Amino acid sequence: MAKRPLSLSKVYTLLESGAVIMVTTAYKGKSNIMTMSWHTMMDFEPPFVGFVMSDRNYSFGLLRKSRECGINIPTVEIAEKAVACGRIHGGKINKFEKFGLTPGISSIIGVPLIEECYASFECRVADTKMVNKYGFFVVEVVKAWIDKAIKNPQTLHHLGGNNFMVAGKRIQIKSPK
Amino acid sequence: MAKRPLSLSKVYTLLESGAVIMVTTAYKGKSNIMTMSWHTMMDFEPPFVGFVMSDRNYSFGLLRKSRECGINIPTVEIAEKAVACGRIHGGKINKFEKFGLTPGISSIIGVPLIEECYASFECRVADTKMVNKYGFFVVEVVKAWIDKAIKNPQTLHHLGGNNFMVAGKRIQIKSPK
Repeated sequence: MAKRPLSLSKVYTLLESGAVIMVTTAYKGKSNIMTMSWHTMMDFEPPFVGFVMSDRNYSFGLLRKSRECGINIPTVEIAEKAVACGRIHGGKINKFEKFGLTPGISSIIGVPLIEECYASFECRVADTKMVNKYGFFVVEVVKAWIDKAIKNPQTLHHLGGNNFMVAGKRIQIKSPK
Repeated sequence: MAKRPLSLSKVYTLLESGAVIMVTTAYKGKSNIMTMSWHTMMDFEPPFVGFVMSDRNYSFGLLRKSRECGINIPTVEIAEKAVACGRIHGGKINKFEKFGLTPGISSIIGVPLIEECYASFECRVADTKMVNKYGFFVVEVVKAWIDKAIKNPQTLHHLGGNNFMVAGKRIQIKSPK
């Protein structure tokens, strides 16, 4: 998969639909992947994203220490792998190896991205004020990548438990004149 | 549309897909509707939701003063109305009247819900620590309503500008054995 740089001003167009994301983290030779959907845009440009990560998650410690993460957006083609990553505890296993996902090289941060995801964002932690109470991290996207060959990405959207919705038809809604 | 109470433990299943929501607010005889998609679940039960509302929005002042809001989830049937509500500034106009939306009665809070939305949540502001910096409100859902006749709600998901995605097919992804 050949990803090209994406303008930071367009990051929100890929995230505000509420797609499931795979957050990659790494610190001192350990890495992890956490699949989640509790995230929101916080600002357009530079793009700020907020997401909830519990201190029970292995990724939490890696993120706190390195203060960097990748946000990767999977599509339905790798749905089983993405969901499985979210259900297995990290630490003792390397999820890249276990699920046959390819660690992609970041340009700015020291965290692997996920080659099989159609878009990946390199992020730095910007605000931890709500981490203790809600596990809510605010990160700044410092570099964005996209595979522009994927014209209509079939993102995943979580409906609780085993239930997911796959991105359906696209529509345009113009302002009333 | 006949909505019935929904268990608070199920609220996250309706919001974590990232559906467009319509936030209703009211204070001292003024009300407003703001359509948005920058929101995230913050906790399961009681359900906490975080969302971004700019201080340039008319709803911001109403929410700050009343500390209550409705979160209503529209489907594609009212897509044009929902999007138009998000593009017109409140204050001088009553959006319920302008767009032919029906103010529904709340059971706990003093803010109208939207009858035409298939689900509505009554919320109280729980945390304003990130309001000054990001316009990020954390609210607690205190009562939830759903029209259970809508089995497969075609929610809207924003992709920036005029572009929206309509909820597509549902799939189940079970854990690996």
